[in-house]
Amino acid sequence: MIEERVLLGERSYSIHIGRGAFELAVGESAGLSCSKIKTAVVSDAKVARLHAEKLSRLGAPSDRMEKDGTEKSKTFGELEDLCSRFAGMGLDRKSAVFAVGGGVIGDLVGFAAAVYMRGIDFYQVPTTLLAMVDSSVGGKTGINIDEGKNLVGAFHQPRAVFADMEFLDTLPKNEFAAGMAEVIKYGLLADREFFEMMYALEEPLNPRHPRMAEAVGRCCALKAGVVSGDERENSPNGGRSLLNLGHTFGHAIEKCAGYGTYLHGEAVAIGMVMAAEFSVRMCGLKISDAERIRELLLRYSLPVSLRRPIAAEALLEAMQRDKKAVSGSLRFVLMDEIGKAKTQPVDSAEVLDFLKSFA
Amino acid sequence: MIEERVLLGERSYSIHIGRGAFELAVGESAGLSCSKIKTAVVSDAKVARLHAEKLSRLGAPSDRMEKDGTEKSKTFGELEDLCSRFAGMGLDRKSAVFAVGGGVIGDLVGFAAAVYMRGIDFYQVPTTLLAMVDSSVGGKTGINIDEGKNLVGAFHQPRAVFADMEFLDTLPKNEFAAGMAEVIKYGLLADREFFEMMYALEEPLNPRHPRMAEAVGRCCALKAGVVSGDERENSPNGGRSLLNLGHTFGHAIEKCAGYGTYLHGEAVAIGMVMAAEFSVRMCGLKISDAERIRELLLRYSLPVSLRRPIAAEALLEAMQRDKKAVSGSLRFVLMDEIGKAKTQPVDSAEVLDFLKSFA
Repeated sequence: MIEERVLLGERSYSIHIGRGAFELAVGESAGLSCSKIKTAVVSDAKVARLHAEKLSRLGAPSDRMEKDGTEKSKTFGELEDLCSRFAGMGLDRKSAVFAVGGGVIGDLVGFAAAVYMRGIDFYQVPTTLLAMVDSSVGGKTGINIDEGKNLVGAFHQPRAVFADMEFLDTLPKNEFAAGMAEVIKYGLLADREFFEMMYALEEPLNPRHPRMAEAVGRCCALKAGVVSGDERENSPNGGRSLLNLGHTFGHAIEKCAGYGTYLHGEAVAIGMVMAAEFSVRMCGLKISDAERIRELLLRYSLPVSLRRPIAAEALLEAMQRDKKAVSGSLRFVLMDEIGKAKTQPVDSAEVLDFLKSFA
Repeated sequence: MIEERVLLGERSYSIHIGRGAFELAVGESAGLSCSKIKTAVVSDAKVARLHAEKLSRLGAPSDRMEKDGTEKSKTFGELEDLCSRFAGMGLDRKSAVFAVGGGVIGDLVGFAAAVYMRGIDFYQVPTTLLAMVDSSVGGKTGINIDEGKNLVGAFHQPRAVFADMEFLDTLPKNEFAAGMAEVIKYGLLADREFFEMMYALEEPLNPRHPRMAEAVGRCCALKAGVVSGDERENSPNGGRSLLNLGHTFGHAIEKCAGYGTYLHGEAVAIGMVMAAEFSVRMCGLKISDAERIRELLLRYSLPVSLRRPIAAEALLEAMQRDKKAVSGSLRFVLMDEIGKAKTQPVDSAEVLDFLKSFA
């Protein structure tokens, strides 16, 4: 079992990674129960079906409820429903909530925990690779509104994260691949050695790969380090914003193509290819490195170009509306080389020109 | 102009109190505008009508919107509407929102500012006495759900508060009185001298009373002191919980009678009379002091008993569901004497017995 710490003063917490991590969650829940602390368990409906026996050990039957784990659950309606159910179950300010599922469940349930009675404890049990390496670390929670994704939310750190590789065994292949896009991202932005390790693997990573938990742990450690230094994303030129490598393009793709057309990780994969090509143009990333990035993404069957073209103007407008556009300026995360990312403001006309060449 | 500081580290802020405080808000808004920081102004529709000329100086016309200031606005629907409008106006993470109105507007708009893009700045311009002395200080924001009042929300401190007495000139008499219930509360819980000052006044406080701003300032200072020591209400036996004097009863009355039947301050007035009588029974508050409390409340035409009886059992159940009931125990704020409040756990049977004698 691997343990990574996210250091945030009194909000510090551990991420437990490996086969068997779920049993630690069961133990934590039993401990709370002994202390007369009420708990609720909100699980992805699909995960609950695939791992029924396992989930039956977490909390009492009356504690458990299910939610659809797709992006369309991240609404005010579902948020209100969760808060009402928590109240109906008698959850009070000392209570705790377990979120069992992918990023959608973590974002929605974490946000509900953030606002129910102005904030109660919650635990993350990520069941997708994407959630394990990304959304379960860092405390970002939220929902979507018509005007954009994740435009409403809160920073709310979990008390602990339990990442059990067993859940990955039942993860659809394309979702595993989407998670790998984020795994690869960490190598690109801050850890060339990690990128080279992945690039050198004969057998690509998979849920039963002997180095899988290690890779997840490395991503968590990288993200934890970034988050510890910049919890609320206040650092404009580095810190958390570096985690957005590929995301400025990726979010725009998701929005323009319609949410659900691409998995988040798929959009990020295309976004990283775009960021790499933009880096070649803007700050001298080697063409051969951009090519190796594309190659590694392809090994995981990730898309490296748009399945259907999107007008450059539409992408630009979506980027300008994205929350990363602080007071009008457009900032991109670009790479000087693999493992060395930075943020850089770019003129809109320059962006448009690049988008036209790419699309 | 009186200035009180709420000391909360990097979240510290000032409360400006007096006729003309609104002009300071106008100045702040103009300063933000010069720095290219987008702002939104959300005003109580009634206040906007009564003070149209005044409000026209705060922000640009396209920044301004109105909301109904009654309790039924504190819903997920209105919260979503505000977030959507903020997005439509192009508010980004650096933007700021001004909330102009009573407690409902402050709670709703403050909560929207707390969750829009995971938190943007906001300023409070309280226009009711209740909001000036209570809800605008302390950073509590939130909305109601069917299961209870303020069950969903966030702690989100304003950047500054501007309390202009001019708004009180147009406040309905019963709303002014409701605010006075909270003003009197501060004397009861922590400041006997303040209580005696009010008790000794020949002319009761009113918006044009020479001591009005001073009284508001004293309440803000008392609340600020309590909040600084216990921002997130984690102190179970003192701290913020003392501010709930009269509120455990008051909230139950509001819930059982149906929200809107009593103004919040009216319910609190009855709740304080109940707390005083309960204090006589439980911890030796002098009967004569309980009588003086009732007398002072009556001078402001506040109710000191229920207009229609409510079953003791219903009140008890509502109290048990209230968020102040931490893991089942029932805690009350009681007074050893005027100006000395404390929290005390009380057995449910004892509470029921008292409620039956009161009703």
